[in-house]
This record gives sequence, structure tokens and C-alpha cells, in this order.
Amino acid sequence: MRSFAFCNPVHIVFGKGKIAELDRLIPEDAFVLVLMGGGSVKKNGVYDQVVQALKSRKREDFWGIEANPDYDTCMRAVERIRSEKMNFVLAVGGGSVVDAAKFIVAAACYEDGDPWDIVTGKGRIKAALSFGAVLTLAATGSEMNAGSVISRRSIGAKLPFSSDKVFPKFSILDPETTYSLPAHISACGVVDAYVHVLEQYLSHDLPAPLQDRQAEAILLTLLEEGPKVLESPEDYHVRANIMWCATQALNGLIGCGVLQDWATHMIGHELTAAFGIAHAESLAVVLPALLRERREKKEAKLVQYGRRVLGVGEAEDVAEAAVAATEVFFRKMGLGTRLSDYGIPAEATFMLGDILDNRGFRLGEDRAVNGVMIQKILGRAAEPWN
Amino acid sequence: MRSFAFCNPVHIVFGKGKIAELDRLIPEDAFVLVLMGGGSVKKNGVYDQVVQALKSRKREDFWGIEANPDYDTCMRAVERIRSEKMNFVLAVGGGSVVDAAKFIVAAACYEDGDPWDIVTGKGRIKAALSFGAVLTLAATGSEMNAGSVISRRSIGAKLPFSSDKVFPKFSILDPETTYSLPAHISACGVVDAYVHVLEQYLSHDLPAPLQDRQAEAILLTLLEEGPKVLESPEDYHVRANIMWCATQALNGLIGCGVLQDWATHMIGHELTAAFGIAHAESLAVVLPALLRERREKKEAKLVQYGRRVLGVGEAEDVAEAAVAATEVFFRKMGLGTRLSDYGIPAEATFMLGDILDNRGFRLGEDRAVNGVMIQKILGRAAEPWN
Repeated sequence: MRSFAFCNPVHIVFGKGKIAELDRLIPEDAFVLVLMGGGSVKKNGVYDQVVQALKSRKREDFWGIEANPDYDTCMRAVERIRSEKMNFVLAVGGGSVVDAAKFIVAAACYEDGDPWDIVTGKGRIKAALSFGAVLTLAATGSEMNAGSVISRRSIGAKLPFSSDKVFPKFSILDPETTYSLPAHISACGVVDAYVHVLEQYLSHDLPAPLQDRQAEAILLTLLEEGPKVLESPEDYHVRANIMWCATQALNGLIGCGVLQDWATHMIGHELTAAFGIAHAESLAVVLPALLRERREKKEAKLVQYGRRVLGVGEAEDVAEAAVAATEVFFRKMGLGTRLSDYGIPAEATFMLGDILDNRGFRLGEDRAVNGVMIQKILGRAAEPWN
Repeated sequence: MRSFAFCNPVHIVFGKGKIAELDRLIPEDAFVLVLMGGGSVKKNGVYDQVVQALKSRKREDFWGIEANPDYDTCMRAVERIRSEKMNFVLAVGGGSVVDAAKFIVAAACYEDGDPWDIVTGKGRIKAALSFGAVLTLAATGSEMNAGSVISRRSIGAKLPFSSDKVFPKFSILDPETTYSLPAHISACGVVDAYVHVLEQYLSHDLPAPLQDRQAEAILLTLLEEGPKVLESPEDYHVRANIMWCATQALNGLIGCGVLQDWATHMIGHELTAAFGIAHAESLAVVLPALLRERREKKEAKLVQYGRRVLGVGEAEDVAEAAVAATEVFFRKMGLGTRLSDYGIPAEATFMLGDILDNRGFRLGEDRAVNGVMIQKILGRAAEPWN
């Protein structure tokens, strides 16, 4: 095990009906900017529950945080906070809304120049407003970590940042809020969480048997519960199990003391920025191709994954069987796993490796994923499925 | 899954050489009471590392926190803090020293009467001094939770309390600090952590597949690494894995959303208070007897435990095979699992069930473990091993 530091102070409030606890969780003197996406929270009753719980708080609603939240949208919220002197942000939505909140609370307090510097890493976050979250989608884990990904469509960028100043003070996880999600969105959430685990699991060098098994615990549960959510979208326990899996997948715990990869995410972000495919879709495309390309490096761990998680220990080639079974799982969840599934021709990705190489991308747990290798990975992803 | 709240803000600093980080972790203006047990930390160099790291801090040492820390000892530390106006406590030791620190930081700020009320639950903790820990024994998990057990030998009591005011601000976990532990103490730590997991795992009613597997992750790792520590006490990774397992076993995570038992601990505390056997020894005696007595209630979970963790799924009676294998593991670690192993005659325990019944003990996840059942459990524990 490698040395590590771990601290995750987020207060999780989990269960049906817990949105009512907002009244207890938000300071009495708060002036709250309530951050939301589209109107789905109006249709499923979440918005009404939030309004009811916040009835004694001064509040303003901010609608329109998009999937892959955009810098320009976020900056409009920052302007409202500054002009109205608000002091608390409540994110009501999925990972995009929570990610947006993290940027907004930091940008609202940023006084050292252009807030875009927060995202590029040029600027340092010295302070941030407090914020909480009401989660309505099990996927990104943003509700229990200090990371965020912000897009800036005007310049074709999608970049991650993190700071311990932007942990949510609390996150309310009510599985019932996810009942009305479209099947494909639920499926994307399952795949996103699953890949978060693999990025931390299929990577390291020193023995970390507890972290391995904690990762496998999440993978096994997602494999078991994921397909159920397509059949029974209003099964409380299925929704609850998936929600808790997604949170555990990226709250830092399984990454303690191990090397992490994250190349799939970085390449995926670029596919999303360039071609507009959903985040989880980009992961479903990149991951199998990357695992096959990097098979030699990851062989031992792929075999362990195949044996312990996927039950393909008897296969002639366990590592390949593990990757194939992973791809089958993604397809069972309804996601395409090849570029052609999304109508992206191989040629369209041809320049991407060079571009990322020129931007200095050296990805993966060993920084070996350079432009040439990214090109090879995208080449594999361009092969049609069977 | 049941509804739950979870918040664990402890900052974990894990790895060799991390004691040096005390200088960064403790406020510059702190006047630190350094709490320690016997002289083992002098022999193994931990004390020197602490002194070196704290060289720019005002500091006083307090020696003599005993195993199962005593109220009277703790109150002597409280008097030092009050009379010298100290504002920070550093626990350097195992779970007993950390438990003592939790009581001491609360008692030092307690102004509503007799500090013993904190332990009995009559008093409420409104404030506490800050404290940190340098852990030297992997066992209790106290380094990453807000619970503590305090004994008061003068009245024969051993009682638990908890409060979110007494989370450590940080805990330094350097596996090298545990190299010099006597084999039996290391073994007791492994068994203690193992039973912590079982108290939360062999209990619940509603499906919680992720928590089940997170618990199994710890059990499997302790089964694998535990015996190694007896063979290779200075293997860094073995020590690191056991240390992280023990912390994860009782930091609240695997208990999220599930019913918990804890009857073994409550009965064990009484055996320790009455007969002076070590905490882990008391658990090793009570747990197998309790599982056999409560087999009907716990059958399905015992079978899952037998299949997934112990590899006894092919046994004719999987539940009994699981309990037997657990007992064999404890004995392999060198602990006795019957009262006679510690020279305690069955008759000596005869009154204990009645006494606990009269004190209102109704233990277990269903509160069904009353005096009569405790008597039966102790009767089973009195049967000699093979």
C-alpha cells in the first residue's frame, strides 16, 4: 500500500423523505441560490419538496444548468450571487448540477482575476461559499467528493478541478428522487459509477488487498443491481443500492493508497467535448479499447477482476474475457461501446491523439498513455462491434 | 437498505514516517497534553518521533493510560489540562489511549456537574477540546470514530459513550509503529477488528448488498493477513493492510443503513470488567457462543458468511461450519474461545445474566438478548473446546 491522506467530511443524509431535513441542515440566516437543471425536478415533485423545506429561507431559483455544466452558465449564477449577496448554494439535480455548484461557490469568492483560472489550475481556491446538494441521479459521486468538471463550449474545453474547499456540507440522497429517470439516464449512471471504480482498481502496483475488495464490492453490486433498474425502475432497494454504490465509487475511499489511472475519463472528456456524446457513453467506448491496448501492463489485475468479479476465471484467456464481459455489461445496460454506435467515423478522431499529445497529455497510472497510444486506443474503439 | 446519516470528518494520514506531519497538523499556538500508556512508545522510537515533531510546541506528557482506560486516571489528566490551561490533546498509543482522549477532551469542557454523567448518558457533551491521535496498535477503530469505552474500576463499570464532538481532528497511522508489538497483542487487534465487522454484518433485515460486500472485504483481508502478522511482524504491507482493515471496521461505513448487533461487545465488556480478560479475548469467547445460540435468527446471513468469506459453502451445515471456522480462526490467532481457556469456571458467570437483566440489558439487533439468553450464551461458552 502507498502512503495516503484521506478526509471526507461530507454529511450524508440517506433515505426516503429526507429532503424535509433541509430545514435543519441549512443555516437559518441563509440566502440560498437553488441551482437546478431543466424542469425534471418540477415533474417528479422534488422541486416542491425543496420549496416546502426551504419555506422559511430567503431563496432564489437558478434554472438551466446543462449536462456537462458550462462556464458561461455558471458565471451567470455567480453574478446573481454577487449582486444579491447570497451566502449559500443548494444544488438540486445530478452530478452536473453538483459540479456546477462547486465551481460557482469557489468563483463567487475568487478575487484574483479570471475565475476560469480555477479550472485550468492557474488560480488557487482560497475560499468558497457553503453549499449542499439534493441528489436526483446516481452516477458521478460528486455529492461526496471535492472534484468537479467544467466545460467551456466557446473554446471547446472540458476540464476537471478539485479543492477541499468545495466539499458539499451535506448531501441528501433519497432514492425515490431517481424513480422517474429515463432508463438510458439510469443506465448511464450505473456505467459511470462502474468505470469510476475500474479507474482506481485496474491500475496499481503495490498490494492493497482491502482496497481491491472494497472496489470489487461496488463492481459486484452494480453488476447485480444495474440490470434490475431497467426492469424495475421504482424498486426502492435497487435504487438505494445503486445510489450508494455510485457515491462510494468516487468518494476517495477505494483510491486510498493505490495508483489510479483516469486515462479513460480524460480521453472520454475529449470525445464528449468534440462529439457531444454523453459522459458515460464516452467511457463505455474508451474503456474496453484502453484495457485491450494496455493489457500487458494490466494483465494480473484483469485476471483478478475476471475471476473475482465477472466469473470468467475458467476462460482460456481470462484477461480478454474480463474485458469482453465488461463490454457485454455496458451493452446490456443499453450503451454503445464503439464509436460507430454513435455515428462517429474513425477518421473524425484521427487528429485527437495529436492534439492531446501537443497539449502535454501523458495519461494513465504510469503516464505512458501519450498521443500515439491514444490514437491506437481510438483505433480499437473504431472497430465495429461484432 | 434502511435510512441513515453518515459523516466522518477524521483526517487520516497513513504511511511510514508520517509522525513528522504532527508539526503541520497541530496549531502553532497549541499547548499539548501528550497522552500515553506505558513505556512501549519509548522503546520503539515513537515517543522520540513525537517529541521531535512537536519541538516547537508547548507540551506536557501524561503517562499511565491503562488498557481499558479508567475514569480516575482520565480525571487526573483533566485536572492537568484545567490547571495548566492546555488546549490540545494528542493521544499516542492504541485504542485505549484514543478512547481516554475522547473522554478527557469532553470532560475538560464539561461544566454541568459530574463528568461521569458523560459516560452514563445522563450528561450531554456540548463542547470538547480538539485532539489528534498517533496510532500504535491496529484494533479498535477508535482513531476514526466518535465512540469510546471508559471503565471505572472503583465501581466495576465499563461503559461506552459517543458524541460527534469527540471525533479526532486527525489520526496518523504509521504501520511501522506496530512492528514491535507482542504477537498476542497484534492477534487481539485482528480479532477485535474482525468481530467489529461481524457485529454489523451478521445482523440485518433489509437487503444491503454493498454493505455486505464491504464487510466481507474486511473479513477476507483479515483472514488472509491476520495469520501473516504472527509469522512476519515486520512486513510493512501486512501491517499496513491490517491497520487499514481495523480502521475501516469501525468508522461507521459498513454500518450505514443496516441493523447492528453489538450484544457480543456488551457481554464481553462485562466479562472484562468482572474477570479482567482482554477485550478481544472476551469477544473470542462470547461471539461463537452467541452465534450458536442465535443461529435461527441469523441462519441466512451465517450461510452467506460461510459461503462468501470462509469457503465452507459445501459443508452439510453451512451455518454451523461458519461459526466453527470463525472459532478456528480465533484459535489460530492464539486466542482462547472458551471460558475455561482463561480459567473462568462456568459457575463464576452464573449471576451475570441476572445482573445484566436487572440493569435492563436487552441486547442484539432485535433487543431479544435478555438475561436468560445471556445465561445460555455463557453456558455455551463454558463448554470446553474439543
